[in-house]
Amino acid sequence: MTRYDIAIIGSGPAGLSAALTAKVRNKSIVLFGNKELSNKMQVVDHPILNYLGLPSVTGKNMAAAFTKQLEEMDIAITERKVTSVYAMGDYYALQMDDNTMEEASSVILASGVVAGKPYPGEQKFLGRGVSYCATCDAPLYKGKTVAVIGGSSKEEEEADFLGEVCGKVYYFPLYKGEPEFRNPVEVVREKPVEIIGGMKTSALKTDQNEYAVDCVFILREAQFPGQLVPGLEVENNAVKVDLQMRTNLPGLFAAGDIAGQPYQYIKAAGQGNVAALSAVSYLAELNRK
Amino acid sequence: MTRYDIAIIGSGPAGLSAALTAKVRNKSIVLFGNKELSNKMQVVDHPILNYLGLPSVTGKNMAAAFTKQLEEMDIAITERKVTSVYAMGDYYALQMDDNTMEEASSVILASGVVAGKPYPGEQKFLGRGVSYCATCDAPLYKGKTVAVIGGSSKEEEEADFLGEVCGKVYYFPLYKGEPEFRNPVEVVREKPVEIIGGMKTSALKTDQNEYAVDCVFILREAQFPGQLVPGLEVENNAVKVDLQMRTNLPGLFAAGDIAGQPYQYIKAAGQGNVAALSAVSYLAELNRK
Repeated sequence: MTRYDIAIIGSGPAGLSAALTAKVRNKSIVLFGNKELSNKMQVVDHPILNYLGLPSVTGKNMAAAFTKQLEEMDIAITERKVTSVYAMGDYYALQMDDNTMEEASSVILASGVVAGKPYPGEQKFLGRGVSYCATCDAPLYKGKTVAVIGGSSKEEEEADFLGEVCGKVYYFPLYKGEPEFRNPVEVVREKPVEIIGGMKTSALKTDQNEYAVDCVFILREAQFPGQLVPGLEVENNAVKVDLQMRTNLPGLFAAGDIAGQPYQYIKAAGQGNVAALSAVSYLAELNRK
Repeated sequence: MTRYDIAIIGSGPAGLSAALTAKVRNKSIVLFGNKELSNKMQVVDHPILNYLGLPSVTGKNMAAAFTKQLEEMDIAITERKVTSVYAMGDYYALQMDDNTMEEASSVILASGVVAGKPYPGEQKFLGRGVSYCATCDAPLYKGKTVAVIGGSSKEEEEADFLGEVCGKVYYFPLYKGEPEFRNPVEVVREKPVEIIGGMKTSALKTDQNEYAVDCVFILREAQFPGQLVPGLEVENNAVKVDLQMRTNLPGLFAAGDIAGQPYQYIKAAGQGNVAALSAVSYLAELNRK
């Protein structure tokens, strides 16, 4: 298996800036994200006035400029989703949402911030009726009843797959628009509020009803940082970092919104650069061992 | 006297980025620096590959892009030098090199990093035969013998002024090129190594000789941060900051090279943005009091 020098998770300004610097420093990198870069960026249609270097730029034009720069530097975006990152000692194992693994000597988390908080019960029942990965855990719920909370229309495919495997699937979209499925999936327009149960999940409570389920699949666009990386220190919903963007896990760095406020493009880009250079130093030390 | 909301010291990427964000947030600002922005930037003629937003850009073109953006945002650079910053409680007093004062409710230090270290004796004799400001202290040395250490050709004017006032002026240029003076100033091509004396400065020692002088004027392009702001916490020749770019002095922020490594353009720009937003928060709190 290829072991990358640096895996970068996220294709907003922090991830892109980290990729540029890592590439300039001749490291082998994999950049996980999506080719539209960042949804948040794409929807900004008022001019952004304070990105030094890009005067009065819309989000769309900023994304176009960044994409062009990536192409010139021969940096590709890998459109796959990382669901978990495990510290393995001298490398990190990345679990992908298609249930395969990737390996990297160091990791830069730049996947942005998730609005809101985990649902009550989410932490408690994780692994016991709460899952973040349909592909990974669907076999466990063959013929059973599950709920899927979908953060965006991209999650419909996952829910559809569950519809194929499970006995009954409720789908709670957190967005507007009409979800479409090939398999039997019941769309419920209620707001999930809590996951309840005893030893294991028994039901999903909404603002209006309670649904008896064996598992709740919570498919957000990005995960809460503590959920993505077991053992990672988090403070106020942000990864705890120092000025060099180091986290409490050696070889794991964070940059951009995931590392805390302010949520600003140029700040994210600056931190991505610092994280990459810190990863480069870490790799040098790793190779000396 | 105008009291600015935010005084920004330095016109490299950190200072410019801070100015953009402060301006967007409708603060009254003064930006001290020079219209060429940054000497360091101007001399980079290989392409800079890792500034997200400006693909493969020379220092000159980067400076041109930044200058244009400043103009579009109606931000002016004030070409004056700040020699000291004093915390006065709810505002800062800035001593200028023409011996006038300016006032600001908050300050962002973005004046870059000074290569090297203070000379042995520099700290010890500060105020007792070591000075950073010819205009301010020349009257004290009327008719006496002084040495001037000039970091760049811009300092020649200061030395020339001392030549007019003092009895004897030795000028030690730290750069190439032929200094020119209207007044009697003796150019010495030796390397200053130490300032010596008892209670006060008595001589400047070089790698070859010793010059009996009453004062050594040390005119660097930027000052060591601890010298610029009395009471400022400094660590490894960098201003000590937290992730929000706060220093140990409330209302005083630092960004860019002065706040430590890595010395990178995009990192400096990111920190400038954060410093400006922290200053905005500080001002809001100040006004609530």
